[in-house]
Amino acid sequence: MTEIRQNMASKEWVIIAKTRAQRPHDFTKADREKTEERPERVESCPFCPGNEEKTTAELFRLPAEGPWQVRVFPNMFPAVDREGGRVHSREGGQRRVSGVGYHEVLVESPLHNTTPALQDPEAIALALRAFQARGRQIAGDSRIEHITYFKNHGAAAGTSLEHPHCQILALPMVPNDLRRRIQELRRSIDDDGFCPYCRMIELELEEDVRLLAQNQFFVAFHPYASVSPFHTWIVPRRHGPTFLDQSPGELAALARILREVLARLYHGLGDPDYNYNIRSAPLRDSSSAYLHWYVSVVPRVTKMAGFELGSGMLINPAVPEESAGFLREVALPDHFRAQDGAEGEPVVYRDGRPVH
Amino acid sequence: MTEIRQNMASKEWVIIAKTRAQRPHDFTKADREKTEERPERVESCPFCPGNEEKTTAELFRLPAEGPWQVRVFPNMFPAVDREGGRVHSREGGQRRVSGVGYHEVLVESPLHNTTPALQDPEAIALALRAFQARGRQIAGDSRIEHITYFKNHGAAAGTSLEHPHCQILALPMVPNDLRRRIQELRRSIDDDGFCPYCRMIELELEEDVRLLAQNQFFVAFHPYASVSPFHTWIVPRRHGPTFLDQSPGELAALARILREVLARLYHGLGDPDYNYNIRSAPLRDSSSAYLHWYVSVVPRVTKMAGFELGSGMLINPAVPEESAGFLREVALPDHFRAQDGAEGEPVVYRDGRPVH
Repeated sequence: MTEIRQNMASKEWVIIAKTRAQRPHDFTKADREKTEERPERVESCPFCPGNEEKTTAELFRLPAEGPWQVRVFPNMFPAVDREGGRVHSREGGQRRVSGVGYHEVLVESPLHNTTPALQDPEAIALALRAFQARGRQIAGDSRIEHITYFKNHGAAAGTSLEHPHCQILALPMVPNDLRRRIQELRRSIDDDGFCPYCRMIELELEEDVRLLAQNQFFVAFHPYASVSPFHTWIVPRRHGPTFLDQSPGELAALARILREVLARLYHGLGDPDYNYNIRSAPLRDSSSAYLHWYVSVVPRVTKMAGFELGSGMLINPAVPEESAGFLREVALPDHFRAQDGAEGEPVVYRDGRPVH
Repeated sequence: MTEIRQNMASKEWVIIAKTRAQRPHDFTKADREKTEERPERVESCPFCPGNEEKTTAELFRLPAEGPWQVRVFPNMFPAVDREGGRVHSREGGQRRVSGVGYHEVLVESPLHNTTPALQDPEAIALALRAFQARGRQIAGDSRIEHITYFKNHGAAAGTSLEHPHCQILALPMVPNDLRRRIQELRRSIDDDGFCPYCRMIELELEEDVRLLAQNQFFVAFHPYASVSPFHTWIVPRRHGPTFLDQSPGELAALARILREVLARLYHGLGDPDYNYNIRSAPLRDSSSAYLHWYVSVVPRVTKMAGFELGSGMLINPAVPEESAGFLREVALPDHFRAQDGAEGEPVVYRDGRPVH
């Protein structure tokens, strides 16, 4: 029978439409150009090495010396303006705030034909370090209340440029959707006495049917109430509000597990379009012991939001356990195994503290 | 400067990206087949007259005698199951409810090549009456908590069948998004002492820059914080929770204003894909004086949710005042004027009561 499942953290209900369900391989795109089939460098690409003058002025690069591996600069068509004061006002009773903030582009590699699924974990960690460095800098601007970090991969995910890149969007207000999630989380912790993200990690490790990967610091799984096919959460074992305070060791572990999740999608589904999003706390909550940051990966393999928008109800045409089973079976290139030796023993946390 | 606007009812923030803004005519689809260019009847279409045996068993039709103008039957691939008990349960601590409910198709016309933008208001009113009749019937089923009524027009809006049709989805739980909207609305009324939907009507009529149409019972406008280009709300002047209690006169007025909004979109943008959605109260709130039902129309003229999903923040690449200005100038066929005589004087309500 069809089930309607609730995400225990966000409290969102999702219809798992078993009667309409598609098999995991139905979502594979077989005959499209994959990222790796593109040229390594494209003369007209503004993000390729040698074309640095085609972008806005660089804000950050890694490594600091020698050829860059990662670069950050302002988005040429920013959704918010860097200059100007933050002014809250009313217009005929309707509320608005001036659109001040930061909208930046993070180029993840000098190579045009790569993507995190194909990169070394060290290269992915550089991008995460750049996210963190820019985030820490922007967090010092008192006009800013919230910073989002995300990647749009492929046209269906909303990107127009092929060259691998992420974006940073820093806002003068907290999105209502985030405020709602925080309210639900606070209520859960106050009422039930535990963090639903921490509990989800425990449950997923125990049940082991939606689990995709784990390492010392992170656990990756399809949420029980996945909102769309292959929807994945990567949750830190350590309960904490923000991506900004992650240690270099934690960032390296995030890079490894993110690569594995994205590689399973890449090799299993033929380089699908996807968004990933680092859901970190609003800046005023950067020390709140209520919050638990995480990464959400949403492959864009179905036409989303048609039905959902119309009905106001989320319907997932795939069964998370089946999708996870499929991705777990995907054969990854040999070098993935070789690097697993880098992992330490998982750290177990209880109430945000390591258990020894 | 870029503005970030808040919808005073839903409290959603939207970046109105003036620097990235596209002009209204940029959203026009010039060279696609319009609905009216299709054949009047398609032999293989299961919704065309003569093919009634290709659908599931009819639940309702109008008129009751003679050839049908509107038909309702169960969706052949239902997202929820009509049979079975409503059972709430936990699976390893995760909450679920059995997927019982109703998922029905409402065929809006015997004609294959029509759509509300091209129909007579009387034909649209028949579909609304069918929505209401089915909704009233379903509301008697104690397993059901909420009913959604919606139309997906075109592939980008999530429909696979051309023949004009709507859908009804009745659920055993209240979607979390709706619960959140109700919480915001209750808080607004408790804190501010007025209904934000009633206030929005007053403001839009007064400012007259985002207004699209009005009649005796309804006002149509682009919300100040429209979430996407041409996003339109049709709000009843009479403060009330539910579509189900609307009088025949109110339904006729809704049919007229819905037709005008959809005709402006059809003729202005070249038959764009869209969703419309009747946002009526949860059944337990069917008499709540807190709620104000409305209709939301979302044209699917941009690739939605790429940026939005990634960032957790809504970005509208069009300025609502410009979009409204454009739609207001659209030339409508002559018969629109001719039927305006059917309108009575607008009824003015204060605190949900008519002011004479």
